[in-house]
Amino acid sequence: MPQLSDKGRLMPESPIRKLVPYAEVAKAKGRTVYHLNIGQPDIKTPEVAMEAIRNCQEKVIEYSHSAGNISYRKKLAKMYQNIGIDVNEEEMLITTGGSEAITFALMTCLNPGDEVIIPEPFYANYNGFAVAAGVNVVPVTSSIENDFALPAIEEFEKLIGPKTKAVVICNPNNPTGYLYSKEELNQLRELILKHDLFLFSDEVYREFCYGGEEHFSAMNLEGMDQHVIMMDSVSKRYSECGVRIGALITKNKEVIKTALKFAQARLCPPAFGQIAAEASLETPKEYFEEVYNEYIARRDFVVAALNEMDGVYCPTPKGAFYTVVKLPIDDADKFAQWILEDFEYNNQTVMVAPATGFYATKGLGKNEVRIAYVLKKEDLAKAMVALAEALKVYPGRTR
Amino acid sequence: MPQLSDKGRLMPESPIRKLVPYAEVAKAKGRTVYHLNIGQPDIKTPEVAMEAIRNCQEKVIEYSHSAGNISYRKKLAKMYQNIGIDVNEEEMLITTGGSEAITFALMTCLNPGDEVIIPEPFYANYNGFAVAAGVNVVPVTSSIENDFALPAIEEFEKLIGPKTKAVVICNPNNPTGYLYSKEELNQLRELILKHDLFLFSDEVYREFCYGGEEHFSAMNLEGMDQHVIMMDSVSKRYSECGVRIGALITKNKEVIKTALKFAQARLCPPAFGQIAAEASLETPKEYFEEVYNEYIARRDFVVAALNEMDGVYCPTPKGAFYTVVKLPIDDADKFAQWILEDFEYNNQTVMVAPATGFYATKGLGKNEVRIAYVLKKEDLAKAMVALAEALKVYPGRTR
Repeated sequence: MPQLSDKGRLMPESPIRKLVPYAEVAKAKGRTVYHLNIGQPDIKTPEVAMEAIRNCQEKVIEYSHSAGNISYRKKLAKMYQNIGIDVNEEEMLITTGGSEAITFALMTCLNPGDEVIIPEPFYANYNGFAVAAGVNVVPVTSSIENDFALPAIEEFEKLIGPKTKAVVICNPNNPTGYLYSKEELNQLRELILKHDLFLFSDEVYREFCYGGEEHFSAMNLEGMDQHVIMMDSVSKRYSECGVRIGALITKNKEVIKTALKFAQARLCPPAFGQIAAEASLETPKEYFEEVYNEYIARRDFVVAALNEMDGVYCPTPKGAFYTVVKLPIDDADKFAQWILEDFEYNNQTVMVAPATGFYATKGLGKNEVRIAYVLKKEDLAKAMVALAEALKVYPGRTR
Repeated sequence: MPQLSDKGRLMPESPIRKLVPYAEVAKAKGRTVYHLNIGQPDIKTPEVAMEAIRNCQEKVIEYSHSAGNISYRKKLAKMYQNIGIDVNEEEMLITTGGSEAITFALMTCLNPGDEVIIPEPFYANYNGFAVAAGVNVVPVTSSIENDFALPAIEEFEKLIGPKTKAVVICNPNNPTGYLYSKEELNQLRELILKHDLFLFSDEVYREFCYGGEEHFSAMNLEGMDQHVIMMDSVSKRYSECGVRIGALITKNKEVIKTALKFAQARLCPPAFGQIAAEASLETPKEYFEEVYNEYIARRDFVVAALNEMDGVYCPTPKGAFYTVVKLPIDDADKFAQWILEDFEYNNQTVMVAPATGFYATKGLGKNEVRIAYVLKKEDLAKAMVALAEALKVYPGRTR
């Protein structure tokens, strides 16, 4: 049999999926497993989107424009303008999910062997996109002691070499829920300009900012038009994870022109998804208010519940719907497996994502897990009880 | 401004898109432009697919399984079994179009710098996928003198070196319409086994075989289970180019397992597309009969019309809906531009795809164009008249 590629070997296995068989065993035993491990919200997709799909009268589902339907791009540009991001329909490509936007950005800007600096813990799939592009991820560590604030710029400086081409941030952050301040972003700005780098800003959780905190888009950093590429997606904004519609947005014309060539090779983004995404722009304000109220309630509940547990520390995330929490445990991977395999409380248990999978530096995150508060409060309440009970009896408890 | 990647620079610009501005100018002058240049059929998407979309009652459009919905994979496997291809739902990944299946195959099996041999002329986007994967395309030339039959195996042998990892075929072929015979495929089989290579078989035009010719799938080549990866798509089969649903199919478990890691990084194929694709499996037989009758009539008409033109040679394609035709012209790119820019007959003209874009060897295809017979017969008739008149007066006519 012919040998497979090194890329295939290097391609990381999802840290969460390793746990799936254990969750299945727990379910087979009749246990309820609360999924705190994934970013699949239970929020309904806006009715306007579903209606547009149900009213689809097309006769032939043709290829769309490789950059996405012009009608969608125009309306999307207007949406950005409404929130103070000044872009037009020529400054964006509609992509197949935010995933493809990141891949296009990497392929367009970095050569194989080049480096991107990413504050860790970070969204684990960045590793996969980097492997596909042949690019190396260089982590700069943020820490739970600082509630995962942006690492000091000196720490970035230490890592910059001739191969460094870009910094990737996710803001608000998956997995930490941290929201970068304007000041932090301005520090990054100076670094980017000083070393003539790209800044890839993944802003797919923009609409999820809590407690009066304002999201500041990297697109609005001064003098950075040639440097910033924003990645976006409808997945979280409208609870449309499955429609696979994202966007690559930049004022750098060379980047758009080059990324478009990658877009043309794969022909076009999904047609039905674009219909849903375009219609979603008409989602009434009340939808977002409801979602906001729901998530802030969930966040407040989960954070309080976690911090009440003995030996547990949970920062208060200002955005997204995740939190990385420190537990009194020896090994997050073992714990996540044990709680599915060997634990139950009132026939219930939880699935969490070990934070190790979000760090590139080996050994970090061993006593941290990511919790996604994407379930309704009753379920979160039961999940928190089960987690608290589990920590009491976990054999690898550290104190 | 930071420099872009070499990949971006190497990424080929679509040979057809260069002509788009000229087509727009022609249209702005009030001329009718018949598009013979693209593979966007005018055939209706099956009603069962559109009904499934219109009846979609999902409340949350969630991520699907990274390998695609199990219900779809099971039914798709049954479809293959019905046409004599013995695969099950574990031997396939549902991809975002056939495009992604090719990318996954390249990323999974080839290292950057490795080589794929592809009979030219070939589907131009293979170049783009190869650049993205960092892989080199080595062309082996098929020629219009042999109606684009498989090049002699000795020609392949000459090109095989330590970097050769795979051969890519498209069967039936885009752009030539050639249908490889069982004998030709068996010759390839021996070559593949002798050198322990992969065979990537792009069979997205399987359903378009004319004149009683049978399609023989590479999946049915003996002793090739570890070597063959089939790429498929619903785009042409059901005229669903925009839904972006394809598949990577192989009995090689290592390939599936590894390609799944790439699939997991991008999360999932489009949800609505999968709904349409699954429903499409219930398309009534009459749909395909109608489509078949329509295409064979178009093919016969176009081939006859072309061969009646002085100095023109068109092979009789046995599959797909393209033909590469030899014209008495100096330069296909110049001709394709001229016919849009400086020609009209009864206020009509045509857009064709210069064959140069389908050859990797510089200088080949200069007197050939690809014609897609994807228009209804009345339009094809007018297009053929315009083309014939154009050839009479084209200043670069060679004889």
